[in-house]
Amino acid sequence: MSKEKQFVTEITPQGEDFSRWYIDVIKKAELMDYSPVRGCIVFRPEGFEIWEYMKDELDRMFKETGHRNAYFPMFIPESFFQKEKEHVEGFNPELPWVTEAGGEKLEERLAIRPTSETIIGHMYSKWIQSYRDLPLLINQWANVVRWEKRTLPFLRTTEFLWQEGHTAHETEEEARQETNQMLQIYTEFAENFLAIPVIVGQKTPSEKFAGAVDTYSIEAMMKDGRAVQAGTSHYLGTNFAVAFDIKFLDRENTQQFAHTTSWGVSTRLLGALIMVHGDDRGLALPPKVAPTQVIMIPIGPPKTREQVVGRVDELYAELKKSGIRVKVDDRSDVSPGWKFNEYEMRGVPLRLELGPRDMENGQVVLVSRISGEKRVVAQADLTAEVERMLAEIQADMFERAKQFRADHSHSVETLDEMKAMMEEKRGFVLAGWCGSDACERQVKEETGATSRNIPYQPAEKKTKCLVCEEKAAHTVVFARAY
Amino acid sequence: MSKEKQFVTEITPQGEDFSRWYIDVIKKAELMDYSPVRGCIVFRPEGFEIWEYMKDELDRMFKETGHRNAYFPMFIPESFFQKEKEHVEGFNPELPWVTEAGGEKLEERLAIRPTSETIIGHMYSKWIQSYRDLPLLINQWANVVRWEKRTLPFLRTTEFLWQEGHTAHETEEEARQETNQMLQIYTEFAENFLAIPVIVGQKTPSEKFAGAVDTYSIEAMMKDGRAVQAGTSHYLGTNFAVAFDIKFLDRENTQQFAHTTSWGVSTRLLGALIMVHGDDRGLALPPKVAPTQVIMIPIGPPKTREQVVGRVDELYAELKKSGIRVKVDDRSDVSPGWKFNEYEMRGVPLRLELGPRDMENGQVVLVSRISGEKRVVAQADLTAEVERMLAEIQADMFERAKQFRADHSHSVETLDEMKAMMEEKRGFVLAGWCGSDACERQVKEETGATSRNIPYQPAEKKTKCLVCEEKAAHTVVFARAY
Repeated sequence: MSKEKQFVTEITPQGEDFSRWYIDVIKKAELMDYSPVRGCIVFRPEGFEIWEYMKDELDRMFKETGHRNAYFPMFIPESFFQKEKEHVEGFNPELPWVTEAGGEKLEERLAIRPTSETIIGHMYSKWIQSYRDLPLLINQWANVVRWEKRTLPFLRTTEFLWQEGHTAHETEEEARQETNQMLQIYTEFAENFLAIPVIVGQKTPSEKFAGAVDTYSIEAMMKDGRAVQAGTSHYLGTNFAVAFDIKFLDRENTQQFAHTTSWGVSTRLLGALIMVHGDDRGLALPPKVAPTQVIMIPIGPPKTREQVVGRVDELYAELKKSGIRVKVDDRSDVSPGWKFNEYEMRGVPLRLELGPRDMENGQVVLVSRISGEKRVVAQADLTAEVERMLAEIQADMFERAKQFRADHSHSVETLDEMKAMMEEKRGFVLAGWCGSDACERQVKEETGATSRNIPYQPAEKKTKCLVCEEKAAHTVVFARAY
Repeated sequence: MSKEKQFVTEITPQGEDFSRWYIDVIKKAELMDYSPVRGCIVFRPEGFEIWEYMKDELDRMFKETGHRNAYFPMFIPESFFQKEKEHVEGFNPELPWVTEAGGEKLEERLAIRPTSETIIGHMYSKWIQSYRDLPLLINQWANVVRWEKRTLPFLRTTEFLWQEGHTAHETEEEARQETNQMLQIYTEFAENFLAIPVIVGQKTPSEKFAGAVDTYSIEAMMKDGRAVQAGTSHYLGTNFAVAFDIKFLDRENTQQFAHTTSWGVSTRLLGALIMVHGDDRGLALPPKVAPTQVIMIPIGPPKTREQVVGRVDELYAELKKSGIRVKVDDRSDVSPGWKFNEYEMRGVPLRLELGPRDMENGQVVLVSRISGEKRVVAQADLTAEVERMLAEIQADMFERAKQFRADHSHSVETLDEMKAMMEEKRGFVLAGWCGSDACERQVKEETGATSRNIPYQPAEKKTKCLVCEEKAAHTVVFARAY
């Protein structure tokens, strides 16, 4: 213990500079690194593993609801983008172009997909002939590229990973049901798996997906009060079906255009996860996505060390066998205190300490990363106690995030009130809106906040537009957003 | 049953035209479709699901041996390729280039990765400082692009999916152990999971990976006698470490270059799987990768139909509960015979038939796709019997593929003998080789066959070079290859 390392957090406090806190944490916890390519990051194993748990869970939910995975080319011929007018306007400025390949200039430039409605629409028009071919329920896990001006690790990167669901249906009703079902799946996933409470609602027309009839989203609040759009689900109507000729013979033997949907979540969820749960000590990971759920640390003087480590290894084997993601840190050149800080910084939800006195008493000490609560439990009940405490931590993290959101949600009647609010306080603002683009734009210009969505279940129903004071058509959540 | 559909296989017999057979099968079984992008295919759900099983199994094997997944950008700055001379020469002709993005011409062109040694090498040089950082064991699942002149679905496509492992080690010995370990994993995977027997060995220098010191491969024989390289593992020496400055302080506190490896398998395994097991009736899928392992077909006249279908549904629930991938086809507008053909064409390994007489006797009929063997088993033992028969089919398919390979493996002493052999018969040719590029080239020019590898365990040891008749340095397997 003589060469004891000094633990230095090197983490900027959230209150001092939230952006620096974020970068400090993700670098120090080795979730990512910058790459030599503009706006692209490397997902390091510790960060990528979190994404793998997300992926597995979503994939399971998609398959349970009848979707199957497929894979489409990432190259999209330039002419494809021209077919849906809003779509090309929305995405054209962000496309990277392959113009040469195999030593030759290409006849037609190829975009790298920013999303795949166009190429999938093209294929669907070949596969769908009859109502018997519907619904067609396909998902794709893929990398996509958007050449963004400003980037931020995980939250907005040039290349990112995502899933994009693309479905085709006989009727508008069915397609709308699908759109809604996937929004529900995203909500459950965010709340139950990531412990992130979300506001579920519809995007205003100016914020909807390029080419959609209606876009729905789930919106999460970060610890600096800003919003992250954590998932979207689009009802595309027959827009892409008309553009790509996705037609089918219906039950009355007449040609119809299919109604399509698309929906996606991406690796930006990693950014949201960190910004919702992290604190000045570093990362805090909900047990369901933590690469290490339990860190075991042997404690006590050198003379009892061998015995303690031996017992730790036995308990490790027991937890491991039950499918708990557990690790032992039995290094002797760093102190237990240093390790406590290190694994708190890395967000490991539960710490297990075992010292000579615990040995005598047949117990261990469990400590929650999020609340600091210590619990002394019998070794005989270890697996059950660990599972119970992990479940409690998961629930605790969700409740804390909900409380934080409640504490930073405000309600206003007028734009002036909102401006004052945005200057004094962080968070979400609930307000009435008449439905006009002009009023929405004015809010953005004067406050920097955008409409996040029109919640299905607003805390209260607003009656007047905050800008023009006309009758409110909707109650909207506004916030500055990532 | 009056509107009975006629089953039309539309599959060209293998003996008539193997290439057409292949395309017929993969199109008709809906494994893939051509895309509007040159050389790129769409992996349809039925094909992609097979890849998902492969991926899950390999991923499990990689993790068991201490590897973790990460994700690196798919864009590689042009200057990176210049750093390893052989690498750039090998891959430059096949690169696609992004030259414009976000509405501007890029200052430096970006290649789309054909493989990621360069960008990963760059990151490793940042992450590796000390021997304590080693070994670094990372794998990536990704899409890669090679602008090939001639393409063939699954086996050689412009964009394809793969995994690429990249590891760094303290010593040559350790790196070589890793290279060998991964080759062993690929071998086990091919033989035990895909039921594809492979020849394990080292590539000749002219066939090795661009930038490797040594390349090792597993080679499989297709039903037309041609070879598919089913996986490769490379010992890269310090070539990439020198090019990208991957250095570490060793245990004696001196700077050393790391020894690196890389290894990969790709979606070309789907092509191999189909060409190894398929026959004139269509696909034949080993149970371990079959999206549907058991197809249940109710049989008998309309009057008993409801009762039979009811019982089929009960048995379905039982099999499903045990984790068997099972489906029921109870359509009444197509005959059982039509269904038999349909699911044989789709390669479903096991068919379950249930008719009124089976109901009376409390039994079902199980039929193997691969051997046609029929087995009458008691409904009471159904799950166990199905599991047993699936395991037997898996083993049977491996044995058949081994027998086929044995029947089409030849041994020659001279080039003339080999030429005669290649004209008369399909298959692999075992021959001695002096080790000179010239002799190897002559074999290729005169027979169209390339050296596949130098097997670890050749059927016999050759003493003379088949071309120059000098002393053989190696015994080599030659074959025409995909």
